[in-house]
Amino acid sequence: MGSDFEATRQVTVSRGDWKHLLYKLVQYSAQTAYQLCKVGSISLSLARMAISATISSRYGGSFLQQNLDHFKISVQTIPRSQNIRMIVPKKINPASHVANSSALEATQVQEKKPLSLDSPFPDFRFDEYMNTKAISVNKALDDAIPLQEPIKIHEAMRYSLLAGGKRVRPMLCIASCELVGGDESLAMPMACALEMIHTMSLIHDDLPCMDNDDLRRGKPTNHKVYGEETAVLAGDALLSLAFEHVAAKTGNVQASRVVRAIAELASSVGSQGLVAGQIVDLSSEGEQVDLNHLEYIHVHKTSKLLEAAVVCGAIMGGANEAEIERMRKYAKCIGLLFQVVDDILDVTKSSEELGKTAGKDLATDKATYPKLMGLERAKKFADELVAMATEELSHFDAVKAAPLYHLANYIAYRQN
Amino acid sequence: MGSDFEATRQVTVSRGDWKHLLYKLVQYSAQTAYQLCKVGSISLSLARMAISATISSRYGGSFLQQNLDHFKISVQTIPRSQNIRMIVPKKINPASHVANSSALEATQVQEKKPLSLDSPFPDFRFDEYMNTKAISVNKALDDAIPLQEPIKIHEAMRYSLLAGGKRVRPMLCIASCELVGGDESLAMPMACALEMIHTMSLIHDDLPCMDNDDLRRGKPTNHKVYGEETAVLAGDALLSLAFEHVAAKTGNVQASRVVRAIAELASSVGSQGLVAGQIVDLSSEGEQVDLNHLEYIHVHKTSKLLEAAVVCGAIMGGANEAEIERMRKYAKCIGLLFQVVDDILDVTKSSEELGKTAGKDLATDKATYPKLMGLERAKKFADELVAMATEELSHFDAVKAAPLYHLANYIAYRQN
Repeated sequence: MGSDFEATRQVTVSRGDWKHLLYKLVQYSAQTAYQLCKVGSISLSLARMAISATISSRYGGSFLQQNLDHFKISVQTIPRSQNIRMIVPKKINPASHVANSSALEATQVQEKKPLSLDSPFPDFRFDEYMNTKAISVNKALDDAIPLQEPIKIHEAMRYSLLAGGKRVRPMLCIASCELVGGDESLAMPMACALEMIHTMSLIHDDLPCMDNDDLRRGKPTNHKVYGEETAVLAGDALLSLAFEHVAAKTGNVQASRVVRAIAELASSVGSQGLVAGQIVDLSSEGEQVDLNHLEYIHVHKTSKLLEAAVVCGAIMGGANEAEIERMRKYAKCIGLLFQVVDDILDVTKSSEELGKTAGKDLATDKATYPKLMGLERAKKFADELVAMATEELSHFDAVKAAPLYHLANYIAYRQN
Repeated sequence: MGSDFEATRQVTVSRGDWKHLLYKLVQYSAQTAYQLCKVGSISLSLARMAISATISSRYGGSFLQQNLDHFKISVQTIPRSQNIRMIVPKKINPASHVANSSALEATQVQEKKPLSLDSPFPDFRFDEYMNTKAISVNKALDDAIPLQEPIKIHEAMRYSLLAGGKRVRPMLCIASCELVGGDESLAMPMACALEMIHTMSLIHDDLPCMDNDDLRRGKPTNHKVYGEETAVLAGDALLSLAFEHVAAKTGNVQASRVVRAIAELASSVGSQGLVAGQIVDLSSEGEQVDLNHLEYIHVHKTSKLLEAAVVCGAIMGGANEAEIERMRKYAKCIGLLFQVVDDILDVTKSSEELGKTAGKDLATDKATYPKLMGLERAKKFADELVAMATEELSHFDAVKAAPLYHLANYIAYRQN
């Protein structure tokens, strides 16, 4: 054969079997893949791939492809009602110590599974998790800004804050807190703060002197409803409330951890964070920019706050330094991923599907990943980022890491 | 005689003697006036008046007049090279237990003085204090925002932050910290944060969609130099940097105190603080408002941040609850005072003298104290606020309280 990649065998499994198979792999990989990888009996990437495939299938089903060391797996997910087609390599270079395709077989996985069959993880429902957390977060946000005097400013703040965003940042924060053993309640004020800051950035970003946008989350932008001056002030109020909320409402967390988290959160917003990304983005419109430049923009404009979400959640949850740094690496991948996918959606979706003006980046001649590397390479880049992110998670308890695995893939394969 | 106020005797003293006399009174009053007032041997107000007169003379020499219970003192300061004319009452109602005019005589004061003659207080030089602190604060602000990439946003932040404001908030914060026994260094990050937030509010306030101002601190406003989008972002960056700076740079202070101070600081900015004042102010333009309404605007737009300055300084300095609450009362007076004087200056000074557009409140038909109560009553109200503020300080060590006495009067009798 010409290459190891050419010889593949195709296994078609029912959706139920497939999910079961992968759940097992996810359990298996997260708790033992790192050690197995060390002794050469399984590739860490294989486990990651399985996890990615799980979520890819459940949330949006896009195309996932990854080169591993000595074999190739491609998983294509098709509409939910149908079976999943998995292509796994038939032949593995015998000299290599990586896993062979049988690692994908449920029987082998079951032999090695470190978790019992009654583990909560096989029953983990990401959509339920998302819904439950979103309800908690929305309730907490609603409580954080009661409709009080002066009515107008609180209305404006609530209008944008409670406009039904995906609450990705709060969820990353809470999931990160829970990953290291903390309770949701420890991270909830920080989770709300992240959403307040995110909303502030959207309100200010939409202003006529900035992106001049009329539509956000499917509704007229804040300044369209309340006027520019109120939109500026609503953003300012949300930004300061974010810090007040964390400082005043965080309970049962060491004060030194709260202070550290506040410093982390604030640094993600300022002139070395979100604002840095926005100013460079604005000044780059219509200019030729390269990939490094584009990455600078997105790391600052988007990644920093997502990184803060994950890192602050870990801090509040009681993480040690090594855990915090691992979570930071996970978050950096997620952050860049988020923007790459945003760019992809901008060129592949309609305004109606996105809930905001589509094709805007193209219209304003903004640099985007699809523009600079092409749509397909941008999608591949997204896949690589997912793989890198999930590798970091493999060092944690599989059950507790499940939400963050799913969140990474949700971000990668979301449709708006 | 028609009234106790009519019979006065005039004492002309040399500037040196007059200063010595008043320094003694200040020492005397701060440590004992409260107790003496209780037993009826001296009016607390008399001591306060003396303090006010001291500073009034040294800083700008404006007119100070105050009705006390049973007598009247008016002090007019004339150019520094000349003597001071003091008019004190000749006759006091004998039935009252308030002080007679001899309380103003150095001999009596010296008899009761609780401080030794070698106390540092008689040598306290407010202008030197202001200069020294301003240099420290400006250095700290300069260090806090190095000119780094992205250059434009840091230039814009530095342009407004280092434009030579009076640094009243940082000084209040540091003086409050020192009052309760803390070192300047404990409060310096908070002091810088206060100035960053103050500057942010000015930048956003000046935006075309807000007050649309072209001139600030004698220079073109931020958006006039850097454009609206950069001005919005520079404000956002300064606001978040403020919290980052306190959280990351405060040293040798218990973390629980830092958290509490951050909550206090943030609440002074948001929709129950500065922003509340701004939104109500904006929506009141051209409308008939009463004094309560005006006070609401100013308490929120100006007082809250000054209150945070004082209270946060006390928290960082190690104040107990009683001290914090007393400082809060002092600060509330100072805060309202600040705005009353601002309103007075707007109608009495030129744009050149103020370093910003004068007569603007009148031009935009804004409610102001001079408009609602007349210029003279507004000036009297300012005097009353000074008296109330200094009363709170009388419970503290006189030497350590000196800067805050002087700051109150500096705010009251400043010329821009």
